[in-house]
Amino acid sequence: MRIAIASDHAAVALKAELVAFLLDQGHDVNDLGPETEERVDYPDYGYKLAQCIAAQDADYGVALCGSGIGISIAVNRHPAARCALVNEPYSATLAREHNNANVIAMGGRLTGVDLAKACLTAFLSASFAGGRHAGRVEKLSNPTC
Amino acid sequence: MRIAIASDHAAVALKAELVAFLLDQGHDVNDLGPETEERVDYPDYGYKLAQCIAAQDADYGVALCGSGIGISIAVNRHPAARCALVNEPYSATLAREHNNANVIAMGGRLTGVDLAKACLTAFLSASFAGGRHAGRVEKLSNPTC
Repeated sequence: MRIAIASDHAAVALKAELVAFLLDQGHDVNDLGPETEERVDYPDYGYKLAQCIAAQDADYGVALCGSGIGISIAVNRHPAARCALVNEPYSATLAREHNNANVIAMGGRLTGVDLAKACLTAFLSASFAGGRHAGRVEKLSNPTC
Repeated sequence: MRIAIASDHAAVALKAELVAFLLDQGHDVNDLGPETEERVDYPDYGYKLAQCIAAQDADYGVALCGSGIGISIAVNRHPAARCALVNEPYSATLAREHNNANVIAMGGRLTGVDLAKACLTAFLSASFAGGRHAGRVEKLSNPTC
């Protein structure tokens, strides 16, 4: 799969771990930055990731910041992105099955590396269930607010 | 405080518990629905809540669905809403302090009533820290994606 990943300074270390984890599994990984732990603004990297997803330059995205909250808000500004903030694997599975999420967000200061890997594996392993969920997901692509 | 609350069918029971909890504390609560557990689409209620926040008809919002994921995506479609999906109180505090979140999302099928109350209390008790966080929050109001 083609996976894009972006973070802020607070999650550069987790990003590096997840990039290596994904490459080990043979995925095509596009690291959108940042490269160092110099302070940056999470919206800039969230928007970059959302644009990558909207342009279909990646199948899935991984969004990381200190808590995962800020970057998940930013990614979800784009109607083509469906970003799920998770800190355990069951939510990561539900995000795919029910919400057809295409981006997973996690907090580098809150979720440890091994748990983050388990969440990412659950996310990439699950499939959208469709059915009654399809109309709801369609509404997320056409916001009326 | 003026607090608006919305859910889907999966979280009507949790919504009722949180409405009572907030009323007990003297808050002005606007329950945007739904009233029954008949199936509805979470985006409809998420958009309604986002519009309420954007119109400044409420100071804060509470968004609930089965996992919290779907409705948090919907609420964040509006640039005036900053919706944090949480399942423990520390994230709820960070959401206010760092992201100036104005909506808290939780999953009625994943987070128990007492823990949800603790998250809500943490959210309403915390204050935005401003400083270096202010510019980032400003960028969330003016998305470039």
